[in-house]
Amino acid sequence: MKQLTVKETAKRLLDAESAYILIHRSPDGDCIGSGYALAEAFRLLGKKARVLCSDEIPKRYHFMLPELMTLEEFEPKLIVAADVADEKLLGDALSEYRGRVDLCIDHHISNTGYAEELCLDGKAAAACQVLYEVLREMNVPITREIAVCLYTGIATDTGCFMYDNAGAHTHRIVAEIMDAQPDIRYAIINRNMFTVKSMGRMQLDKILTELLESYMDGKCMLVCITKELMDKYAIDESELEGIAGFPLQVEGAQVSVVMKEYEENVFRISMRSADWVNVSDICQTLGGGGHIKAAGCTIEGTAEEAKNVILEAVAKGMAKQ
Amino acid sequence: MKQLTVKETAKRLLDAESAYILIHRSPDGDCIGSGYALAEAFRLLGKKARVLCSDEIPKRYHFMLPELMTLEEFEPKLIVAADVADEKLLGDALSEYRGRVDLCIDHHISNTGYAEELCLDGKAAAACQVLYEVLREMNVPITREIAVCLYTGIATDTGCFMYDNAGAHTHRIVAEIMDAQPDIRYAIINRNMFTVKSMGRMQLDKILTELLESYMDGKCMLVCITKELMDKYAIDESELEGIAGFPLQVEGAQVSVVMKEYEENVFRISMRSADWVNVSDICQTLGGGGHIKAAGCTIEGTAEEAKNVILEAVAKGMAKQ
Repeated sequence: MKQLTVKETAKRLLDAESAYILIHRSPDGDCIGSGYALAEAFRLLGKKARVLCSDEIPKRYHFMLPELMTLEEFEPKLIVAADVADEKLLGDALSEYRGRVDLCIDHHISNTGYAEELCLDGKAAAACQVLYEVLREMNVPITREIAVCLYTGIATDTGCFMYDNAGAHTHRIVAEIMDAQPDIRYAIINRNMFTVKSMGRMQLDKILTELLESYMDGKCMLVCITKELMDKYAIDESELEGIAGFPLQVEGAQVSVVMKEYEENVFRISMRSADWVNVSDICQTLGGGGHIKAAGCTIEGTAEEAKNVILEAVAKGMAKQ
Repeated sequence: MKQLTVKETAKRLLDAESAYILIHRSPDGDCIGSGYALAEAFRLLGKKARVLCSDEIPKRYHFMLPELMTLEEFEPKLIVAADVADEKLLGDALSEYRGRVDLCIDHHISNTGYAEELCLDGKAAAACQVLYEVLREMNVPITREIAVCLYTGIATDTGCFMYDNAGAHTHRIVAEIMDAQPDIRYAIINRNMFTVKSMGRMQLDKILTELLESYMDGKCMLVCITKELMDKYAIDESELEGIAGFPLQVEGAQVSVVMKEYEENVFRISMRSADWVNVSDICQTLGGGGHIKAAGCTIEGTAEEAKNVILEAVAKGMAKQ
């Protein structure tokens, strides 16, 4: 694997007549944004490009897709991966491309270096932020389609500029995108990405609020979702995505724990930290792992048994820090 | 009233030895931020300054207050108002200053021009954004205290950069603030301002979800809070602040209506629009008014009667547009 600068990456892309652009499975705003922005740039330059994903692009992101996308197959001169930290994340339907990626554009510090050449900025908030620099180097105009893709990717990966990763450079790039396309209704994109909830999700939030348990003077908030509860409220497994941080919104919460019973008496635990508690350390003591602010593990036992084990580990972890 | 440029405003402030800085009643992040950032700038320049507000600064904003604030009274050479669009908004405790404001720094296009001199940028997302330009012109260093104030003011007035008012210039100024003070934990500010909810508020959201009524294929979502309901759930009037937009988060909602019975059979209506519906027009047909996306009116009758009147007006308003 060879690390490329932004300039070298731009040259590599300008030299290619055509490309397949691979994005990760369970696609999100950032991989869709970087994938399609790059494809649109290719189209503008008179080159051929196709974006490939193992999973379908969810409906909520359809507004990002440029209209004139190439759909037919061709023999690509270059295989690019955008926002894909690990080949495994290409998913089953794209497994044929494992070991065959020529160039990867990414912002995950954990990138495994699977591609022949890698343009990585581990400090960038989003792959779209890295791609913006590459497109500027390529002298590609920031068209309406490209601006929508890049803005949405950056906004979604930063929680609408709420997280630590949204730094001065991120804001400056967003300013440049907005200068290039001032008439896009960015607020409508934000509303759809961050505010709007389905009625089902609102009902789920209601249930989760009822299930909230407070420990350690409210510093640890926990939700335990047993199979029995899922049956009672007819909750589908897929609805539970993205709820790991739910208990963390309670004032004073430092650690949030969501327990999901995925087999009888086997719980998957998602732990999140608001600030100073290292939940990766805590989950490691329980045989799991992850990042400082987002980690997980699996625990066997009844709900009460599992809860006791977790709470003891959290109390120890919080005392240590 | 004389309009001042940023440069003239900077000179006016540099020439003053001391100032009282008035902010509006029911203080929010932007008036607190602009008021205290200016006071801190005065302190840095060896001048005296005091921030005055009719109401107490709510606890959630205390982190913004610089430590070394002047508290004792003095004879101010200049009376400045920050983020105050109308003298009335000074509130009762500051009524003695009506007609006496020398200089107002604001971003409300509706500013009544009550001050002798006015530095107004109606396109700025926040008073803090205007003040940033003034401080830069004054060559005041963006210290940690000033950065916290300015960032919080801009972030809160833009809903964390979510609304229409957060444009390229806003993002660029935020980038400059972050460059000046890269070590501030902006994400923690955002978490406290935008994510965290009290348990009481979470319970209220649960109740509001139960009360959601859907009309016009979900384009109009309504919540009706009767006196009976407030008694049943022991909801205090003050808890209902800021819930006007609650129904608007439902997918597909274009208009949200919140009805509050404040006297028996008298309802205060808050209407919000997601995008293209002009709720000011709708509320005007009901004897009220407001802005395009946020308006209100008062309707007498039983809950059912009031609801019918409102829904008819909303249907007409939506058909017209």
